[in-house]
Amino acid sequence: MADRVYLFDTTLRDGAQTQGVDFTVADKAAIAAALDDIGIDYIEGGWPGANPTDSSFFETPPVLKHATLVAFGMTRRPGRSADNDPGLAPILNSKAAAACLVGKSWDFHVDVALEIPREENVAMIRDSIALSKEKKGEALYDAEHFFDGYKANPDYAMACVTAAYEAGARWVVLCDTNGGTLPHEIEQIVGEVVKVVPGSHIGIHAHNDTENAVANSLAAVRAGARQVQGTLNGLGERCGNANIISLIPSLTLKMGYETGLTEGGLAKLTELSRLLDERLNRPANRHQAYVGEAAFAHKGGLHVSAVAKDPRTYEHIDPTLVGNHRTIVVSDQAGRANVLARLSEIGIEVTDEDKIRRLLEVVKEKEYAGYAYDGAEASFELLARQALGEVPRYFTTDRFRVMDDRRRNAKGELVTESEATVTVQVKGEQIMRVAMGNGPVNALDTALREALSSVYPQLGQMQLVDYKVRIMPPRHDSTGTDAVTRTVIESADHNGHRWATVGVSPNVIDSSYIALRDAYAYLLFREGVR
Amino acid sequence: MADRVYLFDTTLRDGAQTQGVDFTVADKAAIAAALDDIGIDYIEGGWPGANPTDSSFFETPPVLKHATLVAFGMTRRPGRSADNDPGLAPILNSKAAAACLVGKSWDFHVDVALEIPREENVAMIRDSIALSKEKKGEALYDAEHFFDGYKANPDYAMACVTAAYEAGARWVVLCDTNGGTLPHEIEQIVGEVVKVVPGSHIGIHAHNDTENAVANSLAAVRAGARQVQGTLNGLGERCGNANIISLIPSLTLKMGYETGLTEGGLAKLTELSRLLDERLNRPANRHQAYVGEAAFAHKGGLHVSAVAKDPRTYEHIDPTLVGNHRTIVVSDQAGRANVLARLSEIGIEVTDEDKIRRLLEVVKEKEYAGYAYDGAEASFELLARQALGEVPRYFTTDRFRVMDDRRRNAKGELVTESEATVTVQVKGEQIMRVAMGNGPVNALDTALREALSSVYPQLGQMQLVDYKVRIMPPRHDSTGTDAVTRTVIESADHNGHRWATVGVSPNVIDSSYIALRDAYAYLLFREGVR
Repeated sequence: MADRVYLFDTTLRDGAQTQGVDFTVADKAAIAAALDDIGIDYIEGGWPGANPTDSSFFETPPVLKHATLVAFGMTRRPGRSADNDPGLAPILNSKAAAACLVGKSWDFHVDVALEIPREENVAMIRDSIALSKEKKGEALYDAEHFFDGYKANPDYAMACVTAAYEAGARWVVLCDTNGGTLPHEIEQIVGEVVKVVPGSHIGIHAHNDTENAVANSLAAVRAGARQVQGTLNGLGERCGNANIISLIPSLTLKMGYETGLTEGGLAKLTELSRLLDERLNRPANRHQAYVGEAAFAHKGGLHVSAVAKDPRTYEHIDPTLVGNHRTIVVSDQAGRANVLARLSEIGIEVTDEDKIRRLLEVVKEKEYAGYAYDGAEASFELLARQALGEVPRYFTTDRFRVMDDRRRNAKGELVTESEATVTVQVKGEQIMRVAMGNGPVNALDTALREALSSVYPQLGQMQLVDYKVRIMPPRHDSTGTDAVTRTVIESADHNGHRWATVGVSPNVIDSSYIALRDAYAYLLFREGVR
Repeated sequence: MADRVYLFDTTLRDGAQTQGVDFTVADKAAIAAALDDIGIDYIEGGWPGANPTDSSFFETPPVLKHATLVAFGMTRRPGRSADNDPGLAPILNSKAAAACLVGKSWDFHVDVALEIPREENVAMIRDSIALSKEKKGEALYDAEHFFDGYKANPDYAMACVTAAYEAGARWVVLCDTNGGTLPHEIEQIVGEVVKVVPGSHIGIHAHNDTENAVANSLAAVRAGARQVQGTLNGLGERCGNANIISLIPSLTLKMGYETGLTEGGLAKLTELSRLLDERLNRPANRHQAYVGEAAFAHKGGLHVSAVAKDPRTYEHIDPTLVGNHRTIVVSDQAGRANVLARLSEIGIEVTDEDKIRRLLEVVKEKEYAGYAYDGAEASFELLARQALGEVPRYFTTDRFRVMDDRRRNAKGELVTESEATVTVQVKGEQIMRVAMGNGPVNALDTALREALSSVYPQLGQMQLVDYKVRIMPPRHDSTGTDAVTRTVIESADHNGHRWATVGVSPNVIDSSYIALRDAYAYLLFREGVR
């Protein structure tokens, strides 16, 4: 049991402090369920009473199979009893199974920020933890600024920690609140703490201000701490918290610790990481350790051939252990072997030499024009299958016009309306349609799908779920200085299957049209329309 | 001298391996000059002979004041003499001052990837380093997969390293090529190596596959290594290389090592980090350790008031030491104190209570509508100054129409043309203009500026340098399900001053118009037009 490490996730509390992050109650419930599903031990859900979202989340908390739901709060105010503290009451009366209370442990903070006697701060910790233990059964103490405090005044920092432990705290969590402590300092200080409070009651809460949050957490575990706090993808204020997604595989696969992970939990890490980004509506970090799309990507020709001989030559773990996969990068530096490996990955086997040559030419041409298929796999697959003659021409667009008009409406309000007119050829018939939309791309999408719907009713089931535009720099070898626009569209069908397509053109409406056209063709091809 | 650590940057070589990264010769020269300017010891510029960009870079290398320019290559081929190796020749004949050659040190790789006798690999290292030392004066050996190799067969790994050292390598660089080694293993293994090869000749090259590249580098230095390799912002294949931007302040400010940094070099770190992202035309990571825009951002009300009392309460270093600055985040969680602090930061002091109240209302209203001013500082400043009545209404737009037309031109080619018509009121006069553009936003921008140019000739000096669109999720408390579009436009004047503005609307043309309007108003206000 000494080698059992407890995982504590604070995405929903400390992670929610991140700039631009605004979880809904539904987001919180979905993330908590996914954390519980893989077997995280503790889920800190928020601070009841601090804002309406957190209060509402704890009023009808999700039913957890495995994890302990934790409510966060602060130790009692100075000069008040713990059971008569309006700040503490919502935490202790919440439906959470445990309470985690933060308090000071750095004398400088007690003197300068709180401006109270140091003994009163120790009493605040002792009283609050004792009451939490009594009311909730399980109490945790977050020792804010513990490492800075220990460096400045170890006796006082230890007095705070000892007070919490003696008052019944199941866990005393050592927080590197400002994130400035380095791994060797963490290891040394935690080593001192566990001489006084057993490591089986010590947790670590690290921030990434020196890019060492993961290493700091691992260093604390090596020194004896047995609870690790982190957030999904390292979400959190400033530079973020320790990334629990990176911590888990290092603790289990590399250091051999036991955790409470469910069977198959580890293989859901990639999915769990992506879930957070989905909920935040932001692109996943391709370069993220263990779970990033590029984490097991091979580019150079030599690497690719060595990996083909034995993956251990260039992979530190088997990517499937964490639910990730190997990718062979398509790029204009990539040779024939890479493109073929990539094709084989999506299930296309080509042996005909002429076809291979033609395909390589098409890919190079597209990349020269500014296309990049990282993150637009559907367009790459389509390009390959088109070059191999597998995809029929589903339709051709003879013409489209899109008009955006900003003017005053009958009520005198300024409104902008978009209207698109399209003329398409489909199965020998010319069809013309007009549609209004919530913006030019929406109008174009609607008009095109109306024009195509009688022949391809399948298109009715898809919807556009994300739309991104970026300006690409002019190529250094181009003669002009014109930048091109790259549009990436993500579509979804009613089964939740998603696919991304890309369009490139100097004109954003044109690049959007190209990405839309690929999105339709990909769906039709996948549905078996030939 | 034992506490002198040498900094080796490989952004231009290993960083250039990153998916989507495609440095031009001009990019390489600009980045090398900036690295030299802060006092980096070694700059690895690329691999002469491997591709036209690298060959051209080394043909006319930049003049460096401080740094040693390094050319990268591979040890000689099996069964060939080093001075008769066509792969080695371009490196040894290049204008670089030193050569860094990579070779195997893991028996498994020698057996499986190279399929040659193990002794031949040792001979390849010895011969190649000896010839490089003779030809260039300074030679470095990159021991590929050293840590995996050491774990599998320490004697063989040490034989490779010793061969390089004895052949005259100034540095033997221990590479964690697959990135899977943890900090405590690095510290232990480097500790063994320095018993054989002096630490003053040992370097560390770490990758971020477990999110420990920075910690691994620091661990190696603690164990005695005295050269650290890294890349700007951790650029590199898969999960990236060790981030030299994070390493430098930890090594100097926190661990007390000497480096070759120039006076003022440390304070240029933030600028250097941003330069790379500028060259790659990608947004900077707001959460990057030390230099990120959010690295010293304070959000919560309690934090802000403690920081006002003494910044050390919530800051692990003084941000100006690395050229960064404190920011007070404007957000709908933010109270009055935060908004006032943010205003004071951009030089606006407000004391009138009515004005403060009005300003807070306007900010909340905008944020409710989906605006976010992180990364669009010009729009925030404008919003504040408008609420305070400082900014005149420069013009009003009565109406605009934008038309995009995709059809066949006279030559039968498919082309998409955009045309905008605008009607504006400026200084009591109604002006109507029409313009064509390279896309709808460009057409609108051109037509608006033509309409305004007679009254505001200043607008002629600005240009749009970046344009980004994202779909924002519907607010959880909104009744509908309509997403809004957020457009961020970055503009520049001819002095290189840049400013970012934001627009939000369900319609992308509308949100683009709002961002353009703010971009003009910000320039006019700054130029003193009242």
